[in-house]
Amino acid sequence: MNELDLIELILRETSAYVKAKYAGRTRLRVQEKNGANDLLTEVDVAAQSQIVNRISKSFPTDTVIAEEEGLDQHPDTPPSRCWVIDPIDGTQNFLRGLFPAFAISIAFVRNGEISAAGIAMPVTQDLYLAERNCGATRNTQPLQVSPHGELGRARVEVDFSVPEDREATLESLGQVIHAAGQLRCEGSAAVALCAVAAAEAEAYVHVGLSPWDYAAGQLIVEEAGGTASRLDGSPLALFDGKEGILISNGAVHSALLGHLSAAREPAPAPE
Amino acid sequence: MNELDLIELILRETSAYVKAKYAGRTRLRVQEKNGANDLLTEVDVAAQSQIVNRISKSFPTDTVIAEEEGLDQHPDTPPSRCWVIDPIDGTQNFLRGLFPAFAISIAFVRNGEISAAGIAMPVTQDLYLAERNCGATRNTQPLQVSPHGELGRARVEVDFSVPEDREATLESLGQVIHAAGQLRCEGSAAVALCAVAAAEAEAYVHVGLSPWDYAAGQLIVEEAGGTASRLDGSPLALFDGKEGILISNGAVHSALLGHLSAAREPAPAPE
Repeated sequence: MNELDLIELILRETSAYVKAKYAGRTRLRVQEKNGANDLLTEVDVAAQSQIVNRISKSFPTDTVIAEEEGLDQHPDTPPSRCWVIDPIDGTQNFLRGLFPAFAISIAFVRNGEISAAGIAMPVTQDLYLAERNCGATRNTQPLQVSPHGELGRARVEVDFSVPEDREATLESLGQVIHAAGQLRCEGSAAVALCAVAAAEAEAYVHVGLSPWDYAAGQLIVEEAGGTASRLDGSPLALFDGKEGILISNGAVHSALLGHLSAAREPAPAPE
Repeated sequence: MNELDLIELILRETSAYVKAKYAGRTRLRVQEKNGANDLLTEVDVAAQSQIVNRISKSFPTDTVIAEEEGLDQHPDTPPSRCWVIDPIDGTQNFLRGLFPAFAISIAFVRNGEISAAGIAMPVTQDLYLAERNCGATRNTQPLQVSPHGELGRARVEVDFSVPEDREATLESLGQVIHAAGQLRCEGSAAVALCAVAAAEAEAYVHVGLSPWDYAAGQLIVEEAGGTASRLDGSPLALFDGKEGILISNGAVHSALLGHLSAAREPAPAPE
């Protein structure tokens, strides 16, 4: 079984498990990680454990990086074979029940380059898959980003992060917020990136994410014809220690970078 | 048939029609109303026409106010019997396919007081109903707003409106955006208000809505135990000519009003 086949197999199993748990979400044990807006449920932990065990069985010497349970330390130099996992991206949405806007995200990374990826949405059981240079699919149908290049008509997905980081978020994204046609904030990077890949949105921007939040989504968008970078336009490399990401259909990318760089210019001194 | 029964009947019919059209949404005729971010599809027009015809058959002398087709003029003094309709709230989401975050909204208003209301979500076929003093339901299950009163842990739904109004939106909502625990923006007032009624969110705030955007949702939240007001805390009356709304679980209402009034205070003069 190759890596993409394994991702698909694991996502189908884990997605069914998470969907069942979602139905009984009001009875789950919930912990606060870094305050009330960063939560961990028993389902995050169990789903991650299922995923990690399944990978270890097939590829016992591979490195595994994941959001929960102390697996979140990522290396400065990329391992030759590495899996990057978010068992539930959008835990708040999972718990509150607002839309099916949460997802399971798995990427396989070879020498720092994402080479296979999958995202599953448990409520709808939609499955997004991509392999480097082979395209991206949703439920086996090929995906293609939207061609729209006019920012004032584009749909841009943002995230407002936790309250403590929100001032910085607004400062960095202020120009983007003013310029975008439609703004949406669903609270899951993986879900938003699937929307970009499926031409349901033109771009997703976030000032501070970890590799497991976007690794799978990045490849899915790139293989659907889109573009990924850091907020300064530099390449989006998983382990470069930076946190901001801009992932788009390509056509609105440079316009968005222009608005992001405006936020970094110092304000003119008062006269 | 009383007004609530008629609302339920119409919503079931129209929701099935809109769901079928959603499946073929890429082939629809679309017009711009006020620019690229305010769209009208043939489905908005046909759904509204179905709803209005059905009401006229049962109550031929009632006033009808609706978003499309020249029915959007609302009176200064409330008619004795009046229907307030949005055939699709969230037309952008309907067209782009991002989540099932669009809804059909119908309210019956007697002498200015909303007395019966329903909202249908075509993709999931969920049906929210409320009657004054009789409670609110989703698919016949009673709804109750969340008891959470701490704004820093609350989920607040906002909307960023069209680009032209976004600066005003950010100015009015700036304090709220900083203070809320979680922020979400799905782009449909009706859907967000159902989330408040169902305890999936604590509040919804918008600086400029028309009666058809919130009439049904207001009653559903109030009958689920929540609170509705204008942004200055005054009562939310459909035809008072004001546009800002704050609808919440009640427990976070005064904290949100405090943050909204801070935005209206003039900035202190520079020394």
